[in-house]
Amino acid sequence: MAGRAAYIAVDWGTTNRRAYAMASDGTVLESMRDDRGVLSLAKDAYPAEISALRARFGTEPVIAVGMVGSSRGWCEAPYVDAPATLKQLAESCREAARNVRIVPGIALRDGRRPDVMRGEEIQILGAIHAGSAPATALFCQPGTHNKWVETVDGAITNFTTVMTGELFALLRAHGILAGMLDGPVADGAPFRRGLRRGIASGNLAATLFEIRAGLLLDRLEPSEAAAYASGVLIGADAATRDDLRCRPVHLLGGGALSELYAAAVTELGGSPVIVPDGATTTGIHALWSLNA
Amino acid sequence: MAGRAAYIAVDWGTTNRRAYAMASDGTVLESMRDDRGVLSLAKDAYPAEISALRARFGTEPVIAVGMVGSSRGWCEAPYVDAPATLKQLAESCREAARNVRIVPGIALRDGRRPDVMRGEEIQILGAIHAGSAPATALFCQPGTHNKWVETVDGAITNFTTVMTGELFALLRAHGILAGMLDGPVADGAPFRRGLRRGIASGNLAATLFEIRAGLLLDRLEPSEAAAYASGVLIGADAATRDDLRCRPVHLLGGGALSELYAAAVTELGGSPVIVPDGATTTGIHALWSLNA
Repeated sequence: MAGRAAYIAVDWGTTNRRAYAMASDGTVLESMRDDRGVLSLAKDAYPAEISALRARFGTEPVIAVGMVGSSRGWCEAPYVDAPATLKQLAESCREAARNVRIVPGIALRDGRRPDVMRGEEIQILGAIHAGSAPATALFCQPGTHNKWVETVDGAITNFTTVMTGELFALLRAHGILAGMLDGPVADGAPFRRGLRRGIASGNLAATLFEIRAGLLLDRLEPSEAAAYASGVLIGADAATRDDLRCRPVHLLGGGALSELYAAAVTELGGSPVIVPDGATTTGIHALWSLNA
Repeated sequence: MAGRAAYIAVDWGTTNRRAYAMASDGTVLESMRDDRGVLSLAKDAYPAEISALRARFGTEPVIAVGMVGSSRGWCEAPYVDAPATLKQLAESCREAARNVRIVPGIALRDGRRPDVMRGEEIQILGAIHAGSAPATALFCQPGTHNKWVETVDGAITNFTTVMTGELFALLRAHGILAGMLDGPVADGAPFRRGLRRGIASGNLAATLFEIRAGLLLDRLEPSEAAAYASGVLIGADAATRDDLRCRPVHLLGGGALSELYAAAVTELGGSPVIVPDGATTTGIHALWSLNA
C-alpha cells in the first residue's frame, strides 16, 4: 500500500476515532478504528497521534473532522453559520499543525433556536456529493443525539438535534426505570406499540412514566419494556416533524437505529430511504479535492 | 408527652421516612425524620423499626402511607382503582402486623393510559379534608415525579405522573449537559426565559440540546444554565395541560419547587394557589378517624 496513499482522513469523535488511508481518487486503501476519541486525549497528545498515523499509513497530509475541532478537542475550528456548503467548509478549515487541516462544524446562530453540529455535516454533504441523496432533501442521522437536517441545493440550511438516544441511555442506567430497560430493542410488536404511543403522546416525560405504571399494573411485559421505551422515545422524536409526508427521509449513519427510525417515519405516513454507509469518507474526499 | 399520643402516623417513602406522634384530635405532638426509606430496609427489618417507633412515641397503633406498601416495601397493599375516596382507602388498608395498617395507593387501570400513585393521594385528600382546597379541584404536586391530580367531590378521579424532576437530575449528573447545570435554580430572568421556551417547545428532547448549543454559541451564560434548564423542563411539563385557565391549580408538597410551578402556571394564564404544609398528617388523621 505504501506510496499509494495521498492523504489520511480522520473522523475524530468524542469517544472513538476512525482513520483512513485515502488514494488520490477517493478510494479507501486501509482503515482503522480505536477508542482514542477527544475525551481520552490531552491537547499536547495530538502531534504524537498524527505522527503515528503518518507512520502507519505512509503519507503526510491529514484532514480531520468531528469533535477534534471543538473546544474540548485539539484545536478549535469555529463553526460556520448555516446555510453552509462543502465549499464553505473547505474554505474555513483550520490548520492545526503543518499539513493537518481540521474541518469546522456548522451552527444555527441567528434564528429563534441555537443548534450546532460537528462531524455529521460531512456525512450529509458526502452523501449528496456521491449522488446517494438529492441536493435538496430531508435527512435523519439517528444516534445519541439524533439530527434532522434539511438541505437546499447542496447547502445545509436547517437542522435540529434531539437528545433521544441520550435520554434512553440515561433512563436505562439511572433513575426509576433503571433495571427495567435491559431487554432487547428491535422492530417488532412492543416497539411498534411504543412508537404509536410516543407519536400520540404530546408529553414525553409523562409517557415515559407509563412504562413503570404499565409494568406494575401488568399492562407491559418486563421483556418488552426496553423495545417499548425505545418506541416511545423515537415515536415522540419523529412526531415533532410536520414534514414527513412531504418528501422522503434519508436516513444515514445510524446503523441498526436507522431501521427503527425508518419504522417511525413509516408509521407517520412518510417514506424512509436508508442511505448506504461510506458517506463520511466520500465527504472528506470531496472536501479534500476542493482544497487540493 | 407520654400517654397523650393516640397513634403513630408514618409517611414511609423510597428514601426518607417521617413519623409523627398523633393525639386523638389530630394534633401532631412530636415528629421525626430520617433516611430509613424502603430502599434501605430489608423486609424483615420492619418489625424492629415499628418497635422502636412505639418505644419512642409511647403508643401502639401505627398507620403508614407511601412506598412501604409497594412491592419493594414491607407488605404490599394493592392499588385501589380511581376514582377513589378517603373512605375507600380506609377500607382497603392492609394489616402488615398487629395494629399496623398500611394505606394503599391509587391506580389508573382501565383507561388509555396506566398510572399509579402511592403516598401523594393522602396529601391531596388531607388538604381537601382540612378545607385547604375544594373537594373538586386540580392539584399539582411537584417533585422527582410531578403529579397533576384531578378530584371530583373528594374523590381522586384522574392523574398524570410526569418525570420532570427525574429528568433534571439525570441530565445534571450524567450525559452531555453534566457539569453545565450546577448553578442556582430560582425564579428569575433565566428561569422565566427557559419557562417560555419550554412552553413553546413542543419537542422537549430537542429544546434540552439547545442548552448546550446556547452555551457554545454564547447565547446562554454558564451561571444561568441550570435555572434555564429547570424552566424548560417545568414549562414543557405545565404546557401539556390544556385546563390551566379553567380553574385554580392547587400546589402542594413541593417545597421550593412549588414556587417554580406557580410561575409556570402564571405564565400560562392560570391561577396558582400554594396549599400550606401539613396535608399528609391531616389526611392520615382523617383516615384514622374513619377507621377508629
